Amino acid sequence: MSAEISSDAAQQAAKAVASHPLAPLSASEITAAASIVKASWPAPTNLHFKVVTLQEPPKAEVLRYLEAEHAGKSRPAVSRKAFLNYYIRNTNKFHEAIVDLTSRCVERNVLLGPFVHANGDGDEIVAIEKIVLADEGVQAEIAKLQLPEGTTVISDPWIYGSDGVNDEDRLYQCFLYLRDPANSLEADSNHYAMPIPISPVLSTETMKVIRIDIMPTGADKTIKPIEKYKVQPPNEYIPEAQTLRTDLKPLNVVQAEGASFQVAQEGTSSVLSWQKWKFRVGFNQREGMVLYDVRYDSRPLFYRLSLSDMNIPYADPRAPFHKKSAFDLGDAGAGIMANNLKLGCDCLGSIYYLSSVLSDDKGGVVDMPNVVCIHEQDAGIGWKHTNYRTGRAAVVRSRELVLQSIITVSNYEYILAFVFNQAGEVTYEIRATGILSTQPIDEGVEVPFGTVVHPGVLAVHHQHIFSLRVDPMIDGYSNRLVYDEAFPMPRSDLNPHGTGYYVQETIVDKSGGYDTAHEHNRTFKIQNAAVRNPINGKPVAYKIQAPPFQKILSDKDSFNYKRAEFSDHDVYVVAHRDGELYAGGQYTNQSRGGTGVRSWAQRGENVRDADLVLYVQAGINHVPRIEDFPVMPCEILRIHMKPVNFFDRNPALDVPPSEQGFNQSSLLSEQHQQPSVEAKIGQDGTCCEPKL
Amino acid sequence: MSAEISSDAAQQAAKAVASHPLAPLSASEITAAASIVKASWPAPTNLHFKVVTLQEPPKAEVLRYLEAEHAGKSRPAVSRKAFLNYYIRNTNKFHEAIVDLTSRCVERNVLLGPFVHANGDGDEIVAIEKIVLADEGVQAEIAKLQLPEGTTVISDPWIYGSDGVNDEDRLYQCFLYLRDPANSLEADSNHYAMPIPISPVLSTETMKVIRIDIMPTGADKTIKPIEKYKVQPPNEYIPEAQTLRTDLKPLNVVQAEGASFQVAQEGTSSVLSWQKWKFRVGFNQREGMVLYDVRYDSRPLFYRLSLSDMNIPYADPRAPFHKKSAFDLGDAGAGIMANNLKLGCDCLGSIYYLSSVLSDDKGGVVDMPNVVCIHEQDAGIGWKHTNYRTGRAAVVRSRELVLQSIITVSNYEYILAFVFNQAGEVTYEIRATGILSTQPIDEGVEVPFGTVVHPGVLAVHHQHIFSLRVDPMIDGYSNRLVYDEAFPMPRSDLNPHGTGYYVQETIVDKSGGYDTAHEHNRTFKIQNAAVRNPINGKPVAYKIQAPPFQKILSDKDSFNYKRAEFSDHDVYVVAHRDGELYAGGQYTNQSRGGTGVRSWAQRGENVRDADLVLYVQAGINHVPRIEDFPVMPCEILRIHMKPVNFFDRNPALDVPPSEQGFNQSSLLSEQHQQPSVEAKIGQDGTCCEPKL
Repeated sequence: MSAEISSDAAQQAAKAVASHPLAPLSASEITAAASIVKASWPAPTNLHFKVVTLQEPPKAEVLRYLEAEHAGKSRPAVSRKAFLNYYIRNTNKFHEAIVDLTSRCVERNVLLGPFVHANGDGDEIVAIEKIVLADEGVQAEIAKLQLPEGTTVISDPWIYGSDGVNDEDRLYQCFLYLRDPANSLEADSNHYAMPIPISPVLSTETMKVIRIDIMPTGADKTIKPIEKYKVQPPNEYIPEAQTLRTDLKPLNVVQAEGASFQVAQEGTSSVLSWQKWKFRVGFNQREGMVLYDVRYDSRPLFYRLSLSDMNIPYADPRAPFHKKSAFDLGDAGAGIMANNLKLGCDCLGSIYYLSSVLSDDKGGVVDMPNVVCIHEQDAGIGWKHTNYRTGRAAVVRSRELVLQSIITVSNYEYILAFVFNQAGEVTYEIRATGILSTQPIDEGVEVPFGTVVHPGVLAVHHQHIFSLRVDPMIDGYSNRLVYDEAFPMPRSDLNPHGTGYYVQETIVDKSGGYDTAHEHNRTFKIQNAAVRNPINGKPVAYKIQAPPFQKILSDKDSFNYKRAEFSDHDVYVVAHRDGELYAGGQYTNQSRGGTGVRSWAQRGENVRDADLVLYVQAGINHVPRIEDFPVMPCEILRIHMKPVNFFDRNPALDVPPSEQGFNQSSLLSEQHQQPSVEAKIGQDGTCCEPKL
Repeated sequence: MSAEISSDAAQQAAKAVASHPLAPLSASEITAAASIVKASWPAPTNLHFKVVTLQEPPKAEVLRYLEAEHAGKSRPAVSRKAFLNYYIRNTNKFHEAIVDLTSRCVERNVLLGPFVHANGDGDEIVAIEKIVLADEGVQAEIAKLQLPEGTTVISDPWIYGSDGVNDEDRLYQCFLYLRDPANSLEADSNHYAMPIPISPVLSTETMKVIRIDIMPTGADKTIKPIEKYKVQPPNEYIPEAQTLRTDLKPLNVVQAEGASFQVAQEGTSSVLSWQKWKFRVGFNQREGMVLYDVRYDSRPLFYRLSLSDMNIPYADPRAPFHKKSAFDLGDAGAGIMANNLKLGCDCLGSIYYLSSVLSDDKGGVVDMPNVVCIHEQDAGIGWKHTNYRTGRAAVVRSRELVLQSIITVSNYEYILAFVFNQAGEVTYEIRATGILSTQPIDEGVEVPFGTVVHPGVLAVHHQHIFSLRVDPMIDGYSNRLVYDEAFPMPRSDLNPHGTGYYVQETIVDKSGGYDTAHEHNRTFKIQNAAVRNPINGKPVAYKIQAPPFQKILSDKDSFNYKRAEFSDHDVYVVAHRDGELYAGGQYTNQSRGGTGVRSWAQRGENVRDADLVLYVQAGINHVPRIEDFPVMPCEILRIHMKPVNFFDRNPALDVPPSEQGFNQSSLLSEQHQQPSVEAKIGQDGTCCEPKL
């Protein structure tokens, strides 16, 4: 229960908070919205729902609500609305609707297209797997492989991508693999170690195979007739297939007094409070975890933070691989693919789980348990100084609060986390793991666009390009983007020895894509020019630190480039417009570009001292190593946002000192020569203040 | 006790291992070496020792020894030698000596110079502090400040730097500060919040003040006469000066069964074994922690790993600040400045401490207790894959082994750690913390080369440039440096849609400085071309991932640039030569360049399939924020070394699955919907294998 709501007013409050304008749709709201849309059609119409989610109210309305909320005043009424999209089932008629849940009115209900396609969904994908494997043409091709008796073929339906060649319809490109024929009953056999060169294409309108592509498996694009498949040894990842290490001792994280954070469940959203931080957690089909109204010590920082988009273009130029360019959020959904996280498996320590509900393809409800885990972690020393004259050390450890989701996108996994610390910093951490998307390759062949990771198995190079959407409100709603750069001073009377350098700030006036320049230490900051630091008069700001990444390698005329509108710049900044949330556009599946952040930026709007939104990109050009197979060790990216002249000193200065009485460490070595200190440990558990 | 040594042979072994060629000098070896050098001089000669340390034997000899050691064969005798340098006390006569400890012979004993100067040392610095404050001229200047009665002035002696202007002698530039006059008895008052504009210069030959510089405190280089000092409010970092947070609950790391690593103390060095890793830990005055003979699963990886050098040039071009350019290793020493680490304060969990001995200025021994702490830590999920068809997740956590040292260099701290994981990766982690070096600034003045962090206090921009020395032996002694780059494929019949890209490898033939090119995803790898991956035939390799950094900003004609020979390239590669260990040269104090890695690289030696050594640079251009004062939150840099086609699959595949029975996490939330899983937890403690 949040601190603002007194317990006797709880009943009334429960009703009030259920309709917080940023709370995800409840189960009853999902079914109501779907029913209302269904009712708008003649009775026998069968709708195939893709998304039923909260239509976030206009930001201006929400801000008025939040101001009242934080001031403890009566909050204005904000309409609850649902955003839906759906097909007339087994047609290509794709619709978008907005339903007012209060009035039960359909506000908008339009047919989209052409060239506008919905994401895939789980039921559809499972159905396609079966249809493809049951297809007679596919079976005839598989027969040519002369597989051992009883071999199980697995089909991975992939989104089709775009190349403008007969791709007007919504299609699936299926990649086929074998379970290890010697272990055919093992449902968790790693089929990605046994790819076969047959790739059926299915139309979602007819749910029928419309074409069977045969893959090139040599160094060039030659397609060879299917022949007998050489079964190679398996490469399993499941633990029972390994000789496991036996020398790892348990390491437990114990919080005997509980965790330091509080979660106030307010209807379908949760308000987290921890170490002066406070924010609201939402969850939706597309983005998964979303943070709203992020404040530190009551000062506003971010209106909304979320992973906005992600693109994974592959390097193999040959058909059908040239179309492999996934948008895992828009083509599938980070929310709907979120793992049900398991205590002690996915999360170590004292864990709080958030659950959610999403919609299914029939307008019903999918229970999404434990999609976010929340815990604290120790992040090593936060700050330290030893006065060498007295020997006295002042040291604090850095405690972090982690909100983690894990998503599975067919073969691949992403571990996505927001991390908060006591120094006013927010980090978005991305861990890429899971299984490489593989394809068959002939023995002895090498290609410059992929790595052989197992006999007969090629893992093609690919880029992972992520776009973090940052909707800031640094001490207010009017912010600007600036960047600092450091340059050498020319020699002069002031700089006679050529050692001086200076930092210069540049203000970004217009929406656009901007790039880091490491040679100048270019650093982007979100500033509020109207709020000045009380000590040094600088505008309060948060800076952004993102790792370098190679921009998209597909050429500017390619569909890959046109579709991935966030992939060509480190940072995009645009003026805020309601409804613009996804850097690659609202509908990424088989998209053709023109609907994402590159297009919005071209409006050339003023973003100086305005309601601006940033899209911060980070990425990996994944040149596979054999060590990345059969499951890759996590590759970690971190985007940091850190205060710059926002506070008046180190905000972690008030963290209690790191002391043995609190930390309860154990001594393993025989000797630990701390004469003046050991005595103190014995007495009062403090150890960091020896006066030598 | 190491596994190789049977217990009945322990006595004999103890003697043998004491003389391992890579073991640091013992206390008796230090005193013996110093005595032998002293004895080479006429009786009344008073020597001021700067360094007495192990003279590492020629690499070729050590490799023969290591081969015998690993083969369990009789080990060849390798002479124990000491390297010493010293002054004839109170002169500028600086000598370098090598002593053979077995024969007790002085092998080399030479006068160095001119322009060759030793590092500072603790006794000298403490003496200088007193001399400077007792100096009548300094007191006369201080009197002009009209400080409150009883104010304590603090002197921070700084190495002098080089500008070629009357700097032939070894000098100290002292920066003066006040303790908060209102709290004059607090020895841990943060004097860096009260800098005064008086800077005495002292000659180490006479140990007398030779000049008193008055600092510019405005926007230009005008020097104003000293006048009454305006005492501003203090800015203390000690906990009793804060209102501490009260809402942080304990978080303990518990390893009830002990840690998973073994330490074999072999005389003065320690051999660590952990999760297939094995290496020897040394410790010396200059570099602090050094790792030798690093192997994974018995395969050689690195002959030697250490922080080689560090340079911190400052941006203020005005005298006397233009000379501020510290080399904390060469000018002082990462070993001698290492903190005595405290259980539960600097290290959380189950901790093993390593201690060492170093030399003092009289040729005696300084006890260096607990200079390295060793512990395991959890690093989140190591790898994960969920089979969406069965719902079964395979997940392992990543356990890391950390060896951490913390050094205090006057105002500043570095937390330096080698981190090993179960996927064959080594990371060097640098955390920069401590107190900014400050100087006075007039009220209302802003400068483009610094940030006001407190009233009247300027923290000048500065660069931290680190050089990690990597002496590899990837599956053998003959290695090469290569780099991969990714380029778009031109449009062609193979690449009709403009989506293809390829990776191209370039071999580095000659010694030199090389740079990362993020726009091409340029990735450096250390390869052994003679050892091929059994699956894909690629040369075994380790790649290097370092964060981007801005190269030194001082111009190419400046002393700063000439001295910091590693500061202008991401990577330097040279052919190995015995005795070349420090990227900035053997003697960095008031150095003039020409003796470090840039100079070695100019030899243009072959480094292809050779015994090569890499210097990997990383850095921070530290543009201070007010949040960095009075003690800055850690800024973290990580240099990763990761296997590339070195193993035949993910080497962490055999890590036992992450399970609740092992991890013992606690559930904080009321609901955790894992029906099929919860049952299993109750039964056998496993939880990651639900078959849905």
